[in-house]
Amino acid sequence: MNYKPADIATNFRPLFEPRSVAFLGASSNQGKWGFRILANLVYGGFQGKLYPVNPKKEEILGLKVYGNIGEVPETPDLAVIVVPPPSVPGVLKECITKGIKAGVVITAGFAEIGEEGEKLQQEIVDIGRTGGMILVGPNSFGIVNPWHKLYLQMPPIFPPPGPFGVLSQSGNVVGTISRLAISSGFGCSKGISSGNEADLQSQDYLEYLAEDANTKVILCYTEGFKDGRRFFRIAREITRKKPIVMLKAGETPAGARAVMSHTASLAGSDAAFDAMCKQAGLIRVRSLDELADTGIALLCNPLPRGRRVGIVTAGGGWGALAADACAKLGLDVVSLPPETLAELDAFLPAWWNRGNPVDLVAGAFGDALTKCVEVVLRSPVVDAVIMLGLMPGVEVKRQFTRSSGKDEREQLRQALLDGIGRVFDQLNELVKTHKKPVVVASEPIAFGTGFTDKITRAMAERNSVCYGMPHQAASALASLVQYSEYLRQNGA
Amino acid sequence: MNYKPADIATNFRPLFEPRSVAFLGASSNQGKWGFRILANLVYGGFQGKLYPVNPKKEEILGLKVYGNIGEVPETPDLAVIVVPPPSVPGVLKECITKGIKAGVVITAGFAEIGEEGEKLQQEIVDIGRTGGMILVGPNSFGIVNPWHKLYLQMPPIFPPPGPFGVLSQSGNVVGTISRLAISSGFGCSKGISSGNEADLQSQDYLEYLAEDANTKVILCYTEGFKDGRRFFRIAREITRKKPIVMLKAGETPAGARAVMSHTASLAGSDAAFDAMCKQAGLIRVRSLDELADTGIALLCNPLPRGRRVGIVTAGGGWGALAADACAKLGLDVVSLPPETLAELDAFLPAWWNRGNPVDLVAGAFGDALTKCVEVVLRSPVVDAVIMLGLMPGVEVKRQFTRSSGKDEREQLRQALLDGIGRVFDQLNELVKTHKKPVVVASEPIAFGTGFTDKITRAMAERNSVCYGMPHQAASALASLVQYSEYLRQNGA
Repeated sequence: MNYKPADIATNFRPLFEPRSVAFLGASSNQGKWGFRILANLVYGGFQGKLYPVNPKKEEILGLKVYGNIGEVPETPDLAVIVVPPPSVPGVLKECITKGIKAGVVITAGFAEIGEEGEKLQQEIVDIGRTGGMILVGPNSFGIVNPWHKLYLQMPPIFPPPGPFGVLSQSGNVVGTISRLAISSGFGCSKGISSGNEADLQSQDYLEYLAEDANTKVILCYTEGFKDGRRFFRIAREITRKKPIVMLKAGETPAGARAVMSHTASLAGSDAAFDAMCKQAGLIRVRSLDELADTGIALLCNPLPRGRRVGIVTAGGGWGALAADACAKLGLDVVSLPPETLAELDAFLPAWWNRGNPVDLVAGAFGDALTKCVEVVLRSPVVDAVIMLGLMPGVEVKRQFTRSSGKDEREQLRQALLDGIGRVFDQLNELVKTHKKPVVVASEPIAFGTGFTDKITRAMAERNSVCYGMPHQAASALASLVQYSEYLRQNGA
Repeated sequence: MNYKPADIATNFRPLFEPRSVAFLGASSNQGKWGFRILANLVYGGFQGKLYPVNPKKEEILGLKVYGNIGEVPETPDLAVIVVPPPSVPGVLKECITKGIKAGVVITAGFAEIGEEGEKLQQEIVDIGRTGGMILVGPNSFGIVNPWHKLYLQMPPIFPPPGPFGVLSQSGNVVGTISRLAISSGFGCSKGISSGNEADLQSQDYLEYLAEDANTKVILCYTEGFKDGRRFFRIAREITRKKPIVMLKAGETPAGARAVMSHTASLAGSDAAFDAMCKQAGLIRVRSLDELADTGIALLCNPLPRGRRVGIVTAGGGWGALAADACAKLGLDVVSLPPETLAELDAFLPAWWNRGNPVDLVAGAFGDALTKCVEVVLRSPVVDAVIMLGLMPGVEVKRQFTRSSGKDEREQLRQALLDGIGRVFDQLNELVKTHKKPVVVASEPIAFGTGFTDKITRAMAERNSVCYGMPHQAASALASLVQYSEYLRQNGA
């Protein structure tokens, strides 16, 4: 489709903010997608009307079932289509007759299976375009809009409303990113599994996400574009205001074969794709966790003015590994000037290493950690700080042991939680004052996974993140530097 | 030191299986290592005698405190030394007078701080060697032997007894690996923070771990060897029987500067180090999580006979990303022969992709997953299978939703747990029959982190692992292939 920007919000509203949804191919068989997706809509708390359609059922999940779409008492905003492939064209025609303007085709078995499927796919595109009905998919895993409580997708994953717009040709990648958005304490603005992109294509969704005020960072997984030229033209406009992080499959011949049989995508030349990303200011990553990590970094930090990094570490090994990771990513682990060293000398133990990384040598506790970060951050030779290890900054007088009593453990946990909150408040203050990013990684503070979730939430509430590994912090910072340099070079 | 193999067990017994431990520099200040390490020994459940020494205290943690080592009523097997640097030589002499044969020097401020520290370090080495006392450290974070309930280390981390021998010049890396060994459901055989390696060096510990029956896989972090020639000579012998996974810091100039100031190590040429690893059959990794992932892969799988891999995936995106990751690591994502495709045709949905990855296209549930794995695994063109996605294999008739009641949730969880157990039992059977590895990665099955821990334990009990990301599975398999090829080429 080819929208003018003004049309986008209007055209996409029935998809992402439907007041009513018809569900064609609803099932009472809990093993079938016709049940599972409907159940996710219901359990996700969708506030609008749901009209399941199935000629053989009367009620599913407490909802009245309609024999065909004609019987539905109003014109639903959106149709979900989960019927078998040969039935899709007929069902679409009925939807169009009913006046429905948007559909999500979950059904698979189209272009991705070869020539015959390709023909069927062209048929449904023609039906949709002639009838003025926009289509997601086919071979889509669904779409999600947590801000509208719309969880129209295969797996029971319910990310809370949040800043990440996820656009993916693979459904299970949307699921993965949604889970990472949940576990990091952030949420999603939209989740889009675009499937075979027979009608709506990546660049259409991209335009929509660009205009969507709830989307702060766009996370994109692709297997190859049908109209790469238009995608990158639009992307180039967007990245001046909103970052786009990109993961592409099909880098290798083995991967390219896989994407052809998955979403019928042509992976194309990887070198050309890489050049396009660079030109359009997309931040390219190489794995799913990097996709989430980078998105979070962009959300939590101002962009650095350069690539000179200071490392403050609670452990020498982590410091050395971070220094290696930074250097391999082209960051400059600078030598700290004498005046910065002198400032650190004033409060660090006598045997501290006087280098970068600044190693706290298991000797600095409490405010010494953030004081270190402050001194290094305001050094004129430093554009950003990587801080490794939260524990020294958490002023806890008692030790947390596995033989502590229950009350005592709870008190200690609360003290840890407060301490961590204090550290991030201080760091955020420093970031604001000096307008330089501080990227944090740390061992988990304590065992007990429920407690870990609490800590993660406390950080997310402060718009902060703590990575689990030193190389993640280096890689997140390198992405910030890359984006910052792109924007400066392109006068944005 | 230079031991004959026969001496090793005898000499190291006081270190790792002490019947009694003197603690020099014991403190009642909960912020000090002299308290924290002692507390970890106590709370870790050490079964032998503990003799805290401090001239100014009478009791710490319910233990009688001795004014000096001379007052201790027996000759302890082991001395822990946490006194300030200038006091270390004197304290060591007293220990030797008492007849103590082994010491762990936690105290930092030796060779890593420059010339003066270097002199002090040489002094304590001379004292130890003259007096026949072997020394860990200085600048060590401690040693751990869960099989002996010896948790003599800085942080309160208590890995259960298990198969991983961790040898590291960095203490906090021992902590990281211990945590990963816990969270993966496996445990540690030994944890060694070798620090500055003034007396005992990496190669000495390596000899010990080689002989230690509880150590099945050695995980090693180094910043540079004092006697690399001997280390690799010994390593080469060991790798014929026991795998060694190696992470080295100081790959880059920035990292090399960091390790010099951390443990006074000379990082040396990275290319030379890499060549030595290849020659000695060490499996080199590039990050901490890869160190743990690779160790677990070696534990859970037979070695593949070649590099030809079949991928069975529940999600197309994961399949494509895994194919890319495999290809980049030199694995061969083979074309499946017609007879294998025909066997899969018999039970997969009509629209399956007839390729490798074998995509279950959200259409195969229950035993279809393991049946797929079986068909691909026994294909003569395949040396190993990567399986992505557990969920399709878990025959759960009801959907797990966030609005389910508590009892219902518990039932569903139990059903999931049973289902996962069944899948891994089936996979283990296939692995045994076909003598080929199956490496699994999957999204977490369900939220609720306590439940995730249960699942992980159920897998570890079956000597199985499920990685969280597709590229982890590829990377784990690539390590198995590398080790297998080394062993075959070297006639082991």
